[in-house]
Amino acid sequence: MKTKEIKNAVGRMIPIEINGEKIVPFQGVGKYQPKGKKHATDISSNSDFPLDGNKQVKSLKDALIKAGLKDGMTISTHHHFRNGDLIANQIFDIAKELGVKNLRWFPSASFPCHEHLIQYLEDGTINRIEGSMNGPLGKFCSEGKMQGVAVLRSHGGRYQSVQDGEVKIDIAVIGAASADSFGNANAIYGTSTSGLLGFALADSQYADKVIVVTDNMVAFPCIPWQIQGNYVDYTVEMDKVGIPEKIVSGTTKITKSPDRLLLAEMTAQFCEDTGLIKDGFSFQTGAGGTSLSVSQYFREIMKKKGIKARFARGGSNKYLVEMLEEGLIDYILDGQTFDLEGVRSMRDNPNHVWTSPFTSYNYHSKGNFAGSVDVVILGATEVDTHFNANVVTHSDGYLLHGIGGWQNCLFSKTVILPLPLFRDRIPIITDELTTICGPGELIDVIVTERGIAINPLRKDLIEKAKKSNLPIKTIQELRDEALKICGEYKKPKLSDKVIAAIKWVDGTVIDVVRQVVD
Amino acid sequence: MKTKEIKNAVGRMIPIEINGEKIVPFQGVGKYQPKGKKHATDISSNSDFPLDGNKQVKSLKDALIKAGLKDGMTISTHHHFRNGDLIANQIFDIAKELGVKNLRWFPSASFPCHEHLIQYLEDGTINRIEGSMNGPLGKFCSEGKMQGVAVLRSHGGRYQSVQDGEVKIDIAVIGAASADSFGNANAIYGTSTSGLLGFALADSQYADKVIVVTDNMVAFPCIPWQIQGNYVDYTVEMDKVGIPEKIVSGTTKITKSPDRLLLAEMTAQFCEDTGLIKDGFSFQTGAGGTSLSVSQYFREIMKKKGIKARFARGGSNKYLVEMLEEGLIDYILDGQTFDLEGVRSMRDNPNHVWTSPFTSYNYHSKGNFAGSVDVVILGATEVDTHFNANVVTHSDGYLLHGIGGWQNCLFSKTVILPLPLFRDRIPIITDELTTICGPGELIDVIVTERGIAINPLRKDLIEKAKKSNLPIKTIQELRDEALKICGEYKKPKLSDKVIAAIKWVDGTVIDVVRQVVD
Repeated sequence: MKTKEIKNAVGRMIPIEINGEKIVPFQGVGKYQPKGKKHATDISSNSDFPLDGNKQVKSLKDALIKAGLKDGMTISTHHHFRNGDLIANQIFDIAKELGVKNLRWFPSASFPCHEHLIQYLEDGTINRIEGSMNGPLGKFCSEGKMQGVAVLRSHGGRYQSVQDGEVKIDIAVIGAASADSFGNANAIYGTSTSGLLGFALADSQYADKVIVVTDNMVAFPCIPWQIQGNYVDYTVEMDKVGIPEKIVSGTTKITKSPDRLLLAEMTAQFCEDTGLIKDGFSFQTGAGGTSLSVSQYFREIMKKKGIKARFARGGSNKYLVEMLEEGLIDYILDGQTFDLEGVRSMRDNPNHVWTSPFTSYNYHSKGNFAGSVDVVILGATEVDTHFNANVVTHSDGYLLHGIGGWQNCLFSKTVILPLPLFRDRIPIITDELTTICGPGELIDVIVTERGIAINPLRKDLIEKAKKSNLPIKTIQELRDEALKICGEYKKPKLSDKVIAAIKWVDGTVIDVVRQVVD
Repeated sequence: MKTKEIKNAVGRMIPIEINGEKIVPFQGVGKYQPKGKKHATDISSNSDFPLDGNKQVKSLKDALIKAGLKDGMTISTHHHFRNGDLIANQIFDIAKELGVKNLRWFPSASFPCHEHLIQYLEDGTINRIEGSMNGPLGKFCSEGKMQGVAVLRSHGGRYQSVQDGEVKIDIAVIGAASADSFGNANAIYGTSTSGLLGFALADSQYADKVIVVTDNMVAFPCIPWQIQGNYVDYTVEMDKVGIPEKIVSGTTKITKSPDRLLLAEMTAQFCEDTGLIKDGFSFQTGAGGTSLSVSQYFREIMKKKGIKARFARGGSNKYLVEMLEEGLIDYILDGQTFDLEGVRSMRDNPNHVWTSPFTSYNYHSKGNFAGSVDVVILGATEVDTHFNANVVTHSDGYLLHGIGGWQNCLFSKTVILPLPLFRDRIPIITDELTTICGPGELIDVIVTERGIAINPLRKDLIEKAKKSNLPIKTIQELRDEALKICGEYKKPKLSDKVIAAIKWVDGTVIDVVRQVVD
C-alpha cells in the first residue's frame, strides 16, 4: 500500500513516513522551530579505558567486534578520502563476513569507489545509504533497487541530524592520515592527507562507539588533534587507508572551456558592477571548473582595485592559497582541501583555518558563519522560474549528486548560480524542477551565457545592475530563450516509488526523488 | 538539625546531603560507575539569531537581562584573567542593581580581586561559590559566613560536573582578550591576553546562555576561535576586561630560596637515578617556585644525556618555552600560560598547543591525557602516612586554596610531591589530614629536605632507588623526624558545621571542610 502523501511548503508531494519514521514536511525558510534537547551520549568513565591512553586493537575487524557491531546498526564514515577511500568497503566486507544484516550506512558522501557495496545493498547486509551518492550507487538507487529509502542531507544538515538525535550513530569509523594510539587524529601529516577531518566531527562527538583508523600511527600526541582522542574508543593501524592521488589532486587545473570561462567572467563582472567586490568582503567560489575561474577573475579585480577580502570560504585549492599568500585574503575558512597546495597551506599557515560543519553550516546552533559570507558562487542542475533550484538529480531523473554544502551556503548574503542555459539540448531553466533542493527566495542571481536574471526580491541588486553593461533579463525571458533553442524536451518517466528523501537544513523534507522507469 | 553523616571510602564523615542535594560519597579510585546521559542543551535554531552573525548588544547589563538573569540562577565565569579579572565583580554589581537574589557563582576559580563580592554573599545576592577560593573569600567561607556550602572541584571535575548535568549553568560570561561580534574568541591577541580559554570551554558548550565580553572586538573571523561563536548568544564590547599585569606576569622568576632549590634538586636527582628521565618521556612540573626549579634541573639533565621529551604539560612559562625552542621538548600541551613568553609561544608556535579540561582532565570521558604523563611534580599543604594529601586547607583549618588540576594529575604515571618537612614549625607529614583531597594510592613519592619516602605500592621505584645516594626513608620515619623537631602542635578548633565539600574527579565527595572556630 502506498504511504499517504502530503504537500509541503514548496508544493511538493511527500510521504508522511519514510523508512518507517514520521517525517516533518518543509515549512518554509526559518519556519520550523525545533523542540527538545540535543542528543546526549552515555556518560563514560576513564576507569573503563586504558589508563596509559593506548586504545589500539589489532585490526578493524577486532575494533568492530569490540564496538558491538550487530544487525540494524548505523555505521558512519566520512568522505575526506573522496574517491580514494579504502575504509568503507572494508567495513562492510567485515559485516558480510560476520553475517551482520540490515545496516544503515551513514557516510558524509559516497563515491564511485564504493560501487563495491552494491552487492551488500542487494544481499541485505546494507539496508540503505543515508548520504549523497555520486555515480554508480546513485544509479542503483535511482532504479529503485535499494531496500530502504535514501536520505540526502547537506553537510550542515548531517551535523544537525546527528546533534539533534535524528540519526543515532552506533559506530563511527574515522579514517585519518595520522593518529596516535589514544585516538587523536589529523589529515595534515602522513601519506593519505586530505587537509582536515571536519566531516567526521559530529560522528566523533555523538556516536556511541568511535574507531579511528590510520596508516600513520605516531607517538602521543598527534598534533593538531582535529579529532580528539577523548571521544575515541578504539584505534587501528593498517597498511593503507586511502589512495593519495584519488584523495586530493596533485594540482588543480582551471577550465579551458570557453563557455565556462565566459560564465565565470560574466559572474565576476556582475559582482564588480554591483559593488559586491569591496574592501573587506568575503566570498566562496567552490571547486567546480566555473567557480575556480570566478575566483581568478576576482583576484584580478581585487588587484586592480587594490583591495583585499577579509576571508574566503574554501574548498581550497592552489589558486585560493596563492591569494592568501599574496595578501589578497586575510583568512581561508576551509571545509575541505582539493589539492596538495591546500593541504600544505592548511598545515603551515595559521590563517588557513580548518572548519567543520558545526562552525560553518549547522542550522540548529546559535548561528553559523555561512550567513557572514558576502558572495557565494554555486552550481545547480536545474533552476525554475521561481529561482528554486536542483542539485541532486539530472533532467533525466537520475540521482547522481549530493547536496554538499549547497543548501547551507544559500544563507549567504548574495547567492549567484552561473549556469549554461542548456546542457545536451535540455534547458536548465524550466517551469518545473525534477527535484527541489533549495527555495528560490534564497537564490539571488542566475548567470547564463545569454543573460543574467536577478531575483525580484533583490530590488537592491536590480537597481545596482542598471549601471552595468551586462545583459540583465528576467528569468522568464531566459526560460523562453532556452525553450526556443532546444524545443520541447521529453520529461523523464518516473514511477510513484520514492527512492530518496531530500532534507532541508532544519531536518524537514523539502522533496523526494522517485524511481526512474525506462 | 544536623544532616546525617556517613563514612566514605577514605574514612571521612560526610553529610548525605549538601545544599539540599543528595551526594554520592567517594567510593575508591575508579570504583564509582556513572550512569545516565551527558547534559543536553536545548536545540537552537539559526532563525532565532541574526543572520549576518552580529550578536553584539550594548552592555553587559543588557546581555544579562536578555539572557534572562533571575533569582536562583547559576552564573559561571572563568579564571584565565586570574587576579586581574574585571568581569565577575561587574556581573554581581548588575545582579545587585537589578535586585536579583540567591545566585550560585560557578567560577573555575576565584581570586583576591573578588573580595568585592563578600558584600553580596552577605546580603543574599550570592548564595554560595562553587569553585576554588584563594584568599579573602576562602577566609570568609572558612569562618562559616557563606549561606550555602562551597563546592570545590578540580579543573577536570568542573568539566565533568557540567558535562554530566550535575551543575546546570544558566548564564556563562566569558571574558576574552579578542572576539568578533559572532562570539568567536581567543586569549592570544589584544591587551588582556592570557593565552587560552580552556577553562571556559565546558561553559560555552553546556550553558543555556553564553555571553562573550571583550575589550578588543575584531572583524569576523576572530582566529583562532578558542571559543566558537556557534555556542554564543550575545557579545559585548567594553573598555577593559582585565588588568594585564595581574593576568600574566611580564616575567617568571625562579626561586632563590635555598630550601626550595634543595627540594627541586633532590626531586630531579631522584627522577634521574630511577630512570624516569629518558628519551621521549613526558613531564609536568607546574608553576610554583619549587616546580619551576625542577624543570630547570630536568633541562640540565636532558642536555647532559642528549635526550628530549615528547611533551611537557604546562602551565607554561618562559623556561618551558625555552626548552621547546631549544628542541628539548617536542610539544607543550598547555592548560594556562603564566607569563607573556608563554602567550607569545602559544600564539606563534604550533607545537605549543592549547588544551582544555576536556582533553586533559575530564574523568568522565573515553580517557584523558593526564594518564599519559610520565612524571608529574605537584605541591600539597599536608600529607599523611598513607600518602593521602591535602591541597585546599592549611594546618590551621582555613580553606585558602583551590584544587586546580591537582587531583587530575594524580592519574599520571609517577606523582612526586616535593615538600618541606615542616612549615612554621608545623609538620607537613602527619597522622591525620585536615582535609583529604587525593587518595594515597595515587601518590608515589614525597621528597623532603630530610629524606625521600616512596609509596610501598611502587615496589619498582623502591628497587630502582636502591642505587641512588639520596636519603630514602619510610614516610613514618619522616613523620617521626618532623615531630621530634617541631614537638606536638595544636590542632585547629573546628565546629561541626560543613562549609565546603571537596569533590573527587568523578563527582563523588571525598571530604568536607568544617568551620574554623577561634
